[in-house]
Amino acid sequence: MSADCIFCKIAAGALPSAKVYEDEDTLAFMDIGPVVKGHTLVIPKQHYDPITGTPPEVLQKLIVVVQKIAAAQFRGLAADGLNVSQANGKVAGQIIPHIHFHVIPRFHSDGHSFSWAAKKYDDAQEMAQFAGKIRDAIR
Amino acid sequence: MSADCIFCKIAAGALPSAKVYEDEDTLAFMDIGPVVKGHTLVIPKQHYDPITGTPPEVLQKLIVVVQKIAAAQFRGLAADGLNVSQANGKVAGQIIPHIHFHVIPRFHSDGHSFSWAAKKYDDAQEMAQFAGKIRDAIR
Repeated sequence: MSADCIFCKIAAGALPSAKVYEDEDTLAFMDIGPVVKGHTLVIPKQHYDPITGTPPEVLQKLIVVVQKIAAAQFRGLAADGLNVSQANGKVAGQIIPHIHFHVIPRFHSDGHSFSWAAKKYDDAQEMAQFAGKIRDAIR
Repeated sequence: MSADCIFCKIAAGALPSAKVYEDEDTLAFMDIGPVVKGHTLVIPKQHYDPITGTPPEVLQKLIVVVQKIAAAQFRGLAADGLNVSQANGKVAGQIIPHIHFHVIPRFHSDGHSFSWAAKKYDDAQEMAQFAGKIRDAIR
């Protein structure tokens, strides 16, 4: 537990939350600032951050709970679709530095857009250069 | 393999891609329409969609490769942060109906915003109602 982490406090029950799922390692609860109503957060009870600092076995537990919440949003809210999202770093929009997955139900009527602005590489060579830099850094 | 699926064709080598990682079950390659240059897609070679129709063990393999790509983007591109994103359904912005995770490097200078517009519940009761609907639908 990280002493000043809001999500650690929620996991410990020291701060309230609207829980939707809990097991030994994982908690899912409502985001109080929903992008779309029904927006749920999935966190490990233990403090990890960012995704690269989280043990793979913890990620594997989290993604199965994300799937469980997704299925429940489809069934329980009659969602038309949904977004799963996970941010690392302030530059990526992360506010609470305790790894969390957003599960956001989507409806034809929700009026939301993530402004997914696809860009282009200058040419195939530039894309290959980016690919090479990532590929060479894989361990 | 789904006969008219672009990602199945990429996985089978019938369409070209700039690959950054490949193993028996999983492929990572560059998105040709990057939100931020370096934007990488992680897919299972087998055809599944959406997240709720994907076997949990496949998701568990995918998320570990997502982590691997994230680490490589931090190291290889000196990313300042990154977004992991997975869409289900056209309403959620999904274009190719073959499950895929986006791994998007972020830089202080990238000028991108996902328009993360947090809203509010009318009151705590409304939030509790949404939580209850999701909770009751968990299996």
